[in-house]
Parts: sequence; C-alpha cells; structure tokens
Amino acid sequence: MWCQSCKEEYEEEDAGTCKECYEEASETEEELKREIDDLRSRLLFLRLPSPTLDAASAPHTDLFLHAIPACSSTGAGGEADAVRVPDTPAVPAHRVILASRSPVFRAMLENEMEESRSGIIKIYDVSYDVLRAFVHYMYTAEALLDEQLASDLLVLAEKYEVKHLKAYCEKFITSKVNNDNAIAHYAFAHRHGAKQLLEASLSELMNNMSTLADREEYKELVEKDPRLVVEIYEAYLNRQVNTAAGKDTDCGCRK
Amino acid sequence: MWCQSCKEEYEEEDAGTCKECYEEASETEEELKREIDDLRSRLLFLRLPSPTLDAASAPHTDLFLHAIPACSSTGAGGEADAVRVPDTPAVPAHRVILASRSPVFRAMLENEMEESRSGIIKIYDVSYDVLRAFVHYMYTAEALLDEQLASDLLVLAEKYEVKHLKAYCEKFITSKVNNDNAIAHYAFAHRHGAKQLLEASLSELMNNMSTLADREEYKELVEKDPRLVVEIYEAYLNRQVNTAAGKDTDCGCRK
Repeated sequence: MWCQSCKEEYEEEDAGTCKECYEEASETEEELKREIDDLRSRLLFLRLPSPTLDAASAPHTDLFLHAIPACSSTGAGGEADAVRVPDTPAVPAHRVILASRSPVFRAMLENEMEESRSGIIKIYDVSYDVLRAFVHYMYTAEALLDEQLASDLLVLAEKYEVKHLKAYCEKFITSKVNNDNAIAHYAFAHRHGAKQLLEASLSELMNNMSTLADREEYKELVEKDPRLVVEIYEAYLNRQVNTAAGKDTDCGCRK
Repeated sequence: MWCQSCKEEYEEEDAGTCKECYEEASETEEELKREIDDLRSRLLFLRLPSPTLDAASAPHTDLFLHAIPACSSTGAGGEADAVRVPDTPAVPAHRVILASRSPVFRAMLENEMEESRSGIIKIYDVSYDVLRAFVHYMYTAEALLDEQLASDLLVLAEKYEVKHLKAYCEKFITSKVNNDNAIAHYAFAHRHGAKQLLEASLSELMNNMSTLADREEYKELVEKDPRLVVEIYEAYLNRQVNTAAGKDTDCGCRK
C-alpha cells in the first residue's frame, strides 16, 4: 500500500496510521501552525523598541542605569554607595517598562527611594555589556546568549526577580552542560536556585563518578563547600539503590 | 493492520501513512507544541499591565486620552478643537507605549505639538468604552470583541495606523459576514480599505444576487454610493465569465 505523506510503497508491518488519523493529524498540524503565526504576530506587536540599540528610536526615557563592575566596588554587596560611577555610558530605560518586568525595580521606583527621585539606578557587580543585554531583554524578550552572558544575566535576573529571563538563561546553560563544566555548573546552580540546571549537571556528574575525584574543580569544591560534594555522593548512592531495586523487580517479573 | 494512532484495525484501502512518516509527524507536532509554549510565555512576559484596568497597577502614566463622542463634536473632522471635554474620566497611558504602537501618536508626541506639551490627547468621534478598549489593546494585544466594538476599533486603528489591531478586528468581522449584513460590511470595508472583509462580503453578496435588489440597504447604497453597487455587478459578471470559461475547459478535457 501507499503512504499518503511520502508517497512511497510500504509493507503491512511498516504501517503507521489509518487514513482518518492521517487526515486528523494534518489538520492539527495546520491549526498549530496558524496558532504559531498568530502568536508571532502578537509578539512582534508587543515588542518595544529597545533604547539600548538606538536612543532615538525610543524617546521619553526617564531612567538611567549605571553598571558598576565588581572591581570598582569597595566591598561585597550593597555598602558600595559611595562608589564612583564609571566612565561607561548610562543605559537609558523607561520606568514603566522596568517596573512592569521586575518587582524589585517596581518597589525601588514606587517607594520614595533615592532611585525614584533621581531617575538613576546603580547596578553593582556587572559589566556595561551585560547590563545593556539585561535592559534589552526587558523590551524585546530576546538575547543573543553565550555561556558567559547567560550566567551573568541569570544572576541579574535572579537579583531583580525577572523570572522569565532567569528561566530562559537556565534553559540555555542546561543545554551546554558536559563532563568538563558539570562541577562549575552544579555549584552555580546551587548558588542561584536553578533547579533544572542542578539536575542536569548532577546527572552528568553521576555518569562520570570514576573520574570525579581527580578533577581540580572537585578539590576546590571540597575545600570551599563540602556540603555540595556530600550531596553529589548522596544522590549517586540513592540512584544506585534505586537501580538495584529496579533490577530486583525486573527479575521478579521474569520468574 | 493496526493504526498506531487510534489503535483500530483498518483495511489496505484505508491506509494513511507508513510508520516512518507517522513518527516524523508526531515529532513535528511535539515541536510545534513546544514552540507554542515558548511563544506564549514570551507573550506573557511582554504584555504590560494596562492602566485602563487599574491605574494603581500601572504607575508613571504621563498621558491622558479624552474620548469626544461624535455628538459633542461641532463639525466633521479636526475643526472641533474648542469642543468641551465630556465628563467621562480620562484614559491614562504612557507616552512610550502609545508612541511605539502608533506612528501617528509618535509624531504627535515627538514633534512639539500641543498634545506633547500638555500630555492631553483628544480622540474625536469615539465613546469612552471604545477608547478604553483601544488603549487596553496597546498594552496587552487583547480585546474582547463583538461586531460593534470590532468596527469601532478598526476605525480607530486605521486612523492611528495600528496595523496589528486593524488586522485583528478585520479578521473578527470577516468571520461574522452573512447574507443579512453583507451590504453593510461591504460598504464599511470599502470606506476603510479592509481587503479581506471586502472580498468576504462581496463573495456573500454574489452568492445571493437574486434577492440583492430587494433589500433596503441595497437601495440606500444605490442612493449614497452607486459606484460601489456597480463594482458588485462587475465582480458578479466577471465571475460568471470565468465560471463559463472553466466549464468550457472541463468539457474540452473530457472529449
């Protein structure tokens, strides 16, 4: 008989679907494609021209963000208020956009805080380029990621509670997990509450347990945060027990 | 043989696809669904809280739109500048949003026009509810349409060049075309350059030519804009000629 999709002849054992299901599936596919077109056109409408690309294309900005790289900071965290604003240009933005994307910016801009009055927000421990990509995402829901930028943006997204961006970066980093970077990603995921990345890097580590202890990053992690190393071993043991239990059940079935 | 989709038995003449194509189609469907999920989550992120729903949820508004219904207007078009602003509340909005959605608002707000200085825009020949729905769409790409609202919004969208909204309304109205409203929609589509709606209503009219001339709306249209009526007859004749030509070709084939 003949396949209605590829027009090739096939034998009975290679049968896929009946005619009715084939037609239904084709209709479903058409419907899904129409929905995608509709969603894409609404996305294009809702995207806003980003002031990070071209200030002229996005006028009426009423806010300026200044990146304060980690090296300019006098101490850890927020006590660096007296820090000199570096020479990189400010990133312009609109209060309404930042406040609608991030509850942290929102609180900052609505409660009579210094930032709300002056329209100037200092963002600590971040480079100008990362800040620019961060603001760009707030307008467009788009970012051209590499692993470093994804990590930097994830940290910012966590700090300012931009959940959608955090999930976007986490998904990207998770897709890049391999044996070489699994320890670093595992520790990073722990620090920033990135569950999907944690599971992926832990799974990669467990698949390569025999060489784990030889790695330089492993020794560093034992030194710096031994509890995380304990969790790797606990997860590994847990998996071994479960696999063994699974095998026992299998044997039981076959008897 | 058995259908892998509905699990029912079927005969050779009811064959749909081979196994390979079935699996490929299932994968495609999964991919499309994943894309839809991704697009939906980006849409949710890009939607903005609309100040038409709750002013508190969208602070920093720097613009007020006033609806001036047709009955308050002293004359046709723009000479109604001295018109009293009615008692309905103003619709608050943000310059950055209106300017990014509509080139007309953009020009108004960027060139040193009265509206830009005062932050007050009068929208003529429109009710408060329609204006509210119009502004709401600018923030959310959503509107709860009925035929009247869709027509009113289409007119506003055309005036302020919000293409996405115009297409959205036109699609909705087109889905409602029937023999009873086809003349009205045909004339409306002509007035506002709505091509898809024009074709749908013209096609509906041509399918009911025998009763066309008896209709009250037809007589009104002949009175008001006879050229539009001529276009209906021209299109009808054109279709008849094409159908006849098609039949001739058919006969030729069968000989």
